[in-house]
Amino acid sequence: MLNRQFRLAARPSGLPKPSDWKLTEEPVRPPADAEVLVRAKYISLDPAMRGWMNDVKSYVPPVALGEVMRAGGVGEVLESKHPSLKPGDFVHGSFGVQTHATLPGTAVTKLDPSFAPLPVFLGTLGMPGMTAYFGLLDVGQPKEGETVVVSGAAGAVGTVVGQIAKIHGCRVIGIAGGKRKCDYLVDELGFDAALDYKAGDLKAALREHCPKGVDVYFDNVGGPILDIVLTRLARKARIVICGAISQYNNTQPTEGPRNYMSLLVFRARMEGMVVFDYVDRFPQALQALSGWLASGKLKTREEIVHGIDRFPEALLMLFKGENLGKLVLQVD
Amino acid sequence: MLNRQFRLAARPSGLPKPSDWKLTEEPVRPPADAEVLVRAKYISLDPAMRGWMNDVKSYVPPVALGEVMRAGGVGEVLESKHPSLKPGDFVHGSFGVQTHATLPGTAVTKLDPSFAPLPVFLGTLGMPGMTAYFGLLDVGQPKEGETVVVSGAAGAVGTVVGQIAKIHGCRVIGIAGGKRKCDYLVDELGFDAALDYKAGDLKAALREHCPKGVDVYFDNVGGPILDIVLTRLARKARIVICGAISQYNNTQPTEGPRNYMSLLVFRARMEGMVVFDYVDRFPQALQALSGWLASGKLKTREEIVHGIDRFPEALLMLFKGENLGKLVLQVD
Repeated sequence: MLNRQFRLAARPSGLPKPSDWKLTEEPVRPPADAEVLVRAKYISLDPAMRGWMNDVKSYVPPVALGEVMRAGGVGEVLESKHPSLKPGDFVHGSFGVQTHATLPGTAVTKLDPSFAPLPVFLGTLGMPGMTAYFGLLDVGQPKEGETVVVSGAAGAVGTVVGQIAKIHGCRVIGIAGGKRKCDYLVDELGFDAALDYKAGDLKAALREHCPKGVDVYFDNVGGPILDIVLTRLARKARIVICGAISQYNNTQPTEGPRNYMSLLVFRARMEGMVVFDYVDRFPQALQALSGWLASGKLKTREEIVHGIDRFPEALLMLFKGENLGKLVLQVD
Repeated sequence: MLNRQFRLAARPSGLPKPSDWKLTEEPVRPPADAEVLVRAKYISLDPAMRGWMNDVKSYVPPVALGEVMRAGGVGEVLESKHPSLKPGDFVHGSFGVQTHATLPGTAVTKLDPSFAPLPVFLGTLGMPGMTAYFGLLDVGQPKEGETVVVSGAAGAVGTVVGQIAKIHGCRVIGIAGGKRKCDYLVDELGFDAALDYKAGDLKAALREHCPKGVDVYFDNVGGPILDIVLTRLARKARIVICGAISQYNNTQPTEGPRNYMSLLVFRARMEGMVVFDYVDRFPQALQALSGWLASGKLKTREEIVHGIDRFPEALLMLFKGENLGKLVLQVD
């Protein structure tokens, strides 16, 4: 049985090129004691993956050259030498961009495939959902009636952030690129407004839709959009720094937020978060998100790309803003 | 009796020029009902004054063209039509850059000149002291044993921030320009180290002196120093944004902190503060600061420039980094 893998061949400059990847095949490694062999069904595509390809110190080590690209996934246990897992179990974990993964049983988490379609465990019930839940509620601390703005609003994290904020009684404004995404946010997810940053004067649109200023800004994009929102804060605003997708493929040094002194003017704070810090509380978030999903208060959407061989092009869809909801690669 | 005044004649581009000011004389206005006439003794020179000269929305309105320049001061009551003030009382308030001020009795605060020399009421026992106290303790929230870094460390706010942090059992590293200031911080104020940003590799010096990272960074300067400290944060670090003196005389747009994504990597936060928000708690801070002054735990230093006519050049000393401690203009 062969394991088909995408390995990092070169450190990209700007958007990853096909030559930055190497497709390899090697025999599947049978599980050793306490290990399991998993066949990947879906692979998660996340903006953060771009950061892991750079040789810089961050919250996780970079992927080494020649190594299988790091990625989350859901799959099925084929063989198990771990007492609490058996063939046929569905699990999620950090399987990498490959068709098969052999890893310790303690490194995977069992999931119930009858509860939701498997890709949902990579999105709304996976890391993006956890990120949205803890980033918004713990770091952003929105109060009922406050105005919450989220950028990258039509992505895997943004869609969940906005809906959780609505559930908590906030006014929610999404920022996204293009009419299709903006219509989806308002018509399907119940956002109070969605601002198309590609379509015109975002500053004027924010002024119109946030007349009392922005109480919580959940930032997935960085760059000029962060700078514009900084000018429209309410007193004691909270900015959650979750990502900066607009900057990940820079070939020039990142520009910082020129308007950061708005933090002083508005007595505001800007705080970074990494979802792994909340792992002990994932069950609490899962319970809440599952409940909202079941009751129809929370909607989830996944965009599936078929075939592991399309990994390089699928990853680029994130940076070109082509996905609506969670982007997932189906292995078969 | 004539009142000699500095009025804002033009909005400066870059460092204020002599032609940005107009020196005027007009008869002193006698106090109306409930007002007092104050003769200014000392005028406070503060970096924030530069911001008030720009025609931009901020936490206070800009000084209008033709208006007397806004400034804090201490002075002596000459005439009073306010029941709780009498000639000979010493008071502080926002008197402006002028020899005499006529203003409501409720707009001034009586002080006890036997307690400390008058200029101290503009520094360690004035707004800079309040800023240091609330900025460090309320926003920075340092814990015993943590590493606190302060920039503009030899200035009116920085000297107090560092000493309060020492009193609270922190390791304190100051950043200042030049050997004279750095020696003063270590030899006189008991800082654990002082790093001369003009003298070499600040990043390497920070690495050496903050091996476990920076827990609290109190930023008075912005610019490249903020960017360097961002790379050396400890987990859950707090950055207090108090000012950005390095940027106040920019003729180009301010550069934002390029390394702001360190907030995510280190799960850190950056928060702005304005001292006026704490006015209800000034008595608490005054009591603490006075107690430390009396017991010798807190040292204060003022640099006095003589003669109101030297106001334009004295103000520039702040931006050239020439003062050590609180810069004060003596009116006589």
